[in-house]
Amino acid sequence: MTQQARQFARRPSLGVAVIGTGAMGADHVRRVDRLISGAHVAAVADLDPERARRLADTVDGCVAYADADEALAAPGVDAVLLASPGPAHEEQLLAALARDLPVLCEKPLTPDAESALRVLEAEQKLGRRRIQVGFMRRFDSEFRRLKRLLEGGTLGRPLLMHCRHRNVRVHDYFTTSMLINDSVVHEMDCTRWLLEQEIAAVTVVRPRPSSLAPEGLEDPQVVLFETAGGAVVTVEMFATSGFGYQVQAEAVCERGTARIGEGHDLLVNSRAGWGGEIPQDFIARFADAYDLEVQEWVDAARADRTTGPTAWDGYAAAAVCAAGVEAQRTGRRTEVELVERPDLYA
Amino acid sequence: MTQQARQFARRPSLGVAVIGTGAMGADHVRRVDRLISGAHVAAVADLDPERARRLADTVDGCVAYADADEALAAPGVDAVLLASPGPAHEEQLLAALARDLPVLCEKPLTPDAESALRVLEAEQKLGRRRIQVGFMRRFDSEFRRLKRLLEGGTLGRPLLMHCRHRNVRVHDYFTTSMLINDSVVHEMDCTRWLLEQEIAAVTVVRPRPSSLAPEGLEDPQVVLFETAGGAVVTVEMFATSGFGYQVQAEAVCERGTARIGEGHDLLVNSRAGWGGEIPQDFIARFADAYDLEVQEWVDAARADRTTGPTAWDGYAAAAVCAAGVEAQRTGRRTEVELVERPDLYA
Amino acid sequence: MTQQARQFARRPSLGVAVIGTGAMGADHVRRVDRLISGAHVAAVADLDPERARRLADTVDGCVAYADADEALAAPGVDAVLLASPGPAHEEQLLAALARDLPVLCEKPLTPDAESALRVLEAEQKLGRRRIQVGFMRRFDSEFRRLKRLLEGGTLGRPLLMHCRHRNVRVHDYFTTSMLINDSVVHEMDCTRWLLEQEIAAVTVVRPRPSSLAPEGLEDPQVVLFETAGGAVVTVEMFATSGFGYQVQAEAVCERGTARIGEGHDLLVNSRAGWGGEIPQDFIARFADAYDLEVQEWVDAARADRTTGPTAWDGYAAAAVCAAGVEAQRTGRRTEVELVERPDLYA
Amino acid sequence: MTQQARQFARRPSLGVAVIGTGAMGADHVRRVDRLISGAHVAAVADLDPERARRLADTVDGCVAYADADEALAAPGVDAVLLASPGPAHEEQLLAALARDLPVLCEKPLTPDAESALRVLEAEQKLGRRRIQVGFMRRFDSEFRRLKRLLEGGTLGRPLLMHCRHRNVRVHDYFTTSMLINDSVVHEMDCTRWLLEQEIAAVTVVRPRPSSLAPEGLEDPQVVLFETAGGAVVTVEMFATSGFGYQVQAEAVCERGTARIGEGHDLLVNSRAGWGGEIPQDFIARFADAYDLEVQEWVDAARADRTTGPTAWDGYAAAAVCAAGVEAQRTGRRTEVELVERPDLYA
Repeated sequence: MTQQARQFARRPSLGVAVIGTGAMGADHVRRVDRLISGAHVAAVADLDPERARRLADTVDGCVAYADADEALAAPGVDAVLLASPGPAHEEQLLAALARDLPVLCEKPLTPDAESALRVLEAEQKLGRRRIQVGFMRRFDSEFRRLKRLLEGGTLGRPLLMHCRHRNVRVHDYFTTSMLINDSVVHEMDCTRWLLEQEIAAVTVVRPRPSSLAPEGLEDPQVVLFETAGGAVVTVEMFATSGFGYQVQAEAVCERGTARIGEGHDLLVNSRAGWGGEIPQDFIARFADAYDLEVQEWVDAARADRTTGPTAWDGYAAAAVCAAGVEAQRTGRRTEVELVERPDLYA
Repeated sequence: MTQQARQFARRPSLGVAVIGTGAMGADHVRRVDRLISGAHVAAVADLDPERARRLADTVDGCVAYADADEALAAPGVDAVLLASPGPAHEEQLLAALARDLPVLCEKPLTPDAESALRVLEAEQKLGRRRIQVGFMRRFDSEFRRLKRLLEGGTLGRPLLMHCRHRNVRVHDYFTTSMLINDSVVHEMDCTRWLLEQEIAAVTVVRPRPSSLAPEGLEDPQVVLFETAGGAVVTVEMFATSGFGYQVQAEAVCERGTARIGEGHDLLVNSRAGWGGEIPQDFIARFADAYDLEVQEWVDAARADRTTGPTAWDGYAAAAVCAAGVEAQRTGRRTEVELVERPDLYA
Repeated sequence: MTQQARQFARRPSLGVAVIGTGAMGADHVRRVDRLISGAHVAAVADLDPERARRLADTVDGCVAYADADEALAAPGVDAVLLASPGPAHEEQLLAALARDLPVLCEKPLTPDAESALRVLEAEQKLGRRRIQVGFMRRFDSEFRRLKRLLEGGTLGRPLLMHCRHRNVRVHDYFTTSMLINDSVVHEMDCTRWLLEQEIAAVTVVRPRPSSLAPEGLEDPQVVLFETAGGAVVTVEMFATSGFGYQVQAEAVCERGTARIGEGHDLLVNSRAGWGGEIPQDFIARFADAYDLEVQEWVDAARADRTTGPTAWDGYAAAAVCAAGVEAQRTGRRTEVELVERPDLYA
Repeated sequence: MTQQARQFARRPSLGVAVIGTGAMGADHVRRVDRLISGAHVAAVADLDPERARRLADTVDGCVAYADADEALAAPGVDAVLLASPGPAHEEQLLAALARDLPVLCEKPLTPDAESALRVLEAEQKLGRRRIQVGFMRRFDSEFRRLKRLLEGGTLGRPLLMHCRHRNVRVHDYFTTSMLINDSVVHEMDCTRWLLEQEIAAVTVVRPRPSSLAPEGLEDPQVVLFETAGGAVVTVEMFATSGFGYQVQAEAVCERGTARIGEGHDLLVNSRAGWGGEIPQDFIARFADAYDLEVQEWVDAARADRTTGPTAWDGYAAAAVCAAGVEAQRTGRRTEVELVERPDLYA
């Protein structure tokens, strides 16, 4: 038995069925196929079978289905990623639970609290958690740093949080209630996760809408949460800001405040002044670069191509280093000597 | 034949041999094993066979070798990642070229220009590029943004570049010439890559060393490059800064300057003022969060665990949304109604 | 008649009576005496005659009075600066109006709207405006820049404003209502001034107070204004932040947002990205430095002292310039030649 | 004898003669006349008598002279501010020393080291320092904060300094040597002042000039200083940057670095991270606003005008406060009641 065979026998790659092949679903297919370690796209399903088929064709070993149920039952399917419209979630979640499959479900879990409760009941009947909801901010490095800081406790209890949530523009079908259900829902989850408290009450204050918002859309809005523990959260929701996508948060605690999402590292105000942390080593600073370096090298190797800095670059660096050490030794300007560049590295 | 079998028949996972199992090699093993899509660690090798074995034991299907040559010849090895000490590189690179294997070689290519030339010759004899050198900054998102900006040409021709390269401290064995060979070598590669010009001359200016630098280490230093195209680059190399790891660069061009590495997004000075770009959509802003969300979900599913936001979180969000939409409609503070939290989600 | 006599005959220095000699009054006395051009402190008054006398003794030609009325009637008094406690303002303002004297009145005008109306009536009876209220933020360079930007109209109509107002701590006598009357009153004035609209309604949302706030002080609070034109303003009022004094504001407009008070220049988010303006000449950048340079030189000359860079500094600069021009010409490192430093410049 | 008379008898206003009435001289005349406390412009002089006369006409009690000597000898002249061209300085400085007058001399002291030495000798013969050279950066709040930080010693000994000096553009008559004599001379003085060491050697490195620099101007340049104490200073001098006026400096010390001139408060890198100080009280934050408030009030009062927030603004604030305290007490949205705005405050 070869080493590789033994590996897959012991820890097989996870076969994922992606349900829904719109923009979000297609992006997840690309992600699982190209970036995620230990998983592959085994099946896709969509009410539009043609769209599903076209997507499946881009992935080795992926089969298209017109029906979510069929995809869940397909050979090699170990887990489900739901990227279908919200109203389809309840039925698909129940089907996945019936098969005891792990599910990653794009938000919302379901479109309302009643249907969500039915899903909760099914999962409790199963007796173990199988569903993860796609509140992706919990995986963002900035939000995680803020979470860790709050958990660490140096700033004391959080008293207030200020959030800003701005989009450039919205689709034609966007409505005022979607400002809450589609957009502010992220701040609701962040509040619950960061403060580890349920939200007890909501208030909405509406300014005169922007003249640039579509007719009928009351944008922007100020939304206030009061949590069970007495914290107050202010949310600026501005879906037609016109200038950019910004998600910002500042936690105001008893001993200081911490801000994220402003184009710079986590910024803390405290007795020590304003500022943040400096990375202490190159691995922290360049971790993502190392990951990408190796991923691009693997991708190129599998396609029998090369990419990135060449042996010529390695040689040139060595020649410049030699001049640098000489310059260091003599205190003098030192010229670099290079052989002529071979055609292979043109 | 199943779909999955067909997939691996068509596009097999890349079997990587990692040579050298010190800190860097071990980190690459973890990376290939856990994060990289489409590759697995098939073999490791180290002069210290015990260290290699211990590392191999952490990876399914990975075999340890005491000899790099053996590892290169092992079954299932498709590519080589060299993380061994620089003096070992020449022989290992030549061995990999002899087997026509793609190589990712941690810098330096080799310790001096003469040996690097011999590697170049072997690769030319092979007739195609097989070697990638590990200058990882070329894969860093900030450096890539700077590169794209310079290529775009809006700022005009680069005239100067200012670099800062600071470490917290150095190992006992660090020497003054290593300031060039181990550290400034990165600025040499960045200069060549960003400006697309060879470096023609180097000058080193040494201040009176820091009293906190180890005896005999002349740190910090100012290094100047002059490029073939007439640009001048200043480098502050400060290996014993005591406070952090900072890699910063500012390109000064005919129509503006651009800076990276300062804890905030790429900052441009131009006729339009100082500032930078705002992301235009949530995918740009949260791309990494989506990747991590799916990776952590896959990792948990393969280990038969769950992680991340639960169905309860999905239900609570739905309930708060309902209150929010009611508050929006009535203009009044609205209380949130939640069922009692089931034990499963405690 | 000498030139100088003629000057003062034509445009006399303004004789100011400062009423109230607590911390604020004493600071204003110092300001008028040392920094303000065209004015001098002619009189001070305080219920504590000893404190007034001690302050008067620090200023040439200043006389102390125990009674505000006497000070207003004193010879050489042309204008009044009220730094007395708020409850004393009504009577003192009416006295100043009776004498037709210009008044700068530290806020509040009076402690409540009824008494303020009586002052308004007296001023209307006088028939011209004589009273300026001390809302000093209108004179702050950052607030002025924000005001100009909003007036310029490039960002469109202001929809929202977010304010933060943080103090390190409060005095023992500070009460919850003083959070409004003493602190948020500044945001009230800024809102009215920046948006050029009256405030139509106020809402206060109180989180569970900080455990570090004194017993009985409900701090922090979130205060909401709705303006006559439909803008909404959120104010974080946090008087016991423990870390610093911060006054921040962000105006959210139809085409972008603008922020001040964050330790950097006015920051605009707009279609062009995030960022701000770069000064275009040295006068803009160093205007304050020129003012201070001349003021310190004048102060030194009047005291028959010298200060600032000496002739030796001028000589040394000339010698280094000579070396610099030589280095520029030859391309070589050039040593600077200086004579020995004379004792006069030791 | 009145109080005011006694004041001027004891501490008279300083009569300043401004020599040179170009842009710089005219700006100083305005400054002394309008902003500086305790001084007035008694005389101006210029080789162009008509320009001098026009400027004198804008200032009460100021007399114009065609000859600097005459201006120095004029009645009421107590001090001299030299804003004439550099080549005229030597003679004018010697004349001022002959009359024992305090001098503020715009840089350069004189155009070369030899003439500067003659001035030094005359001042030594006089036996006391009378000359201050106009290196205005020493009076800039950012440079002063950096100076204080370096003197405080927490960052240890300065090892390096990095300076950037950028202009938008230059006049037609600007030459390559003026890059040193007119521009980098400021960095020379800053280096000497901040590091308290003489500059021992200068090196200039010239990149290929910007294609946007005027024909014959070799801009930008990199200038290096080595100080007597072994510090190294790098200066980017870029007079035709096209985008703005920027003067930036970073001192790199044994225990951290500190940066100024980047559009935000002094930024320190140290073991504590990156960041800066937060002001601790409103006086620190709004000191300049208070100064300007009082100056504008005095200017208005002397011109029999009013400016700034009116009594109506004071009344409106009181009315909004009343609503705020009510909202705070009841927890409810509270409407503000205002009387109709009187015509006087329209």
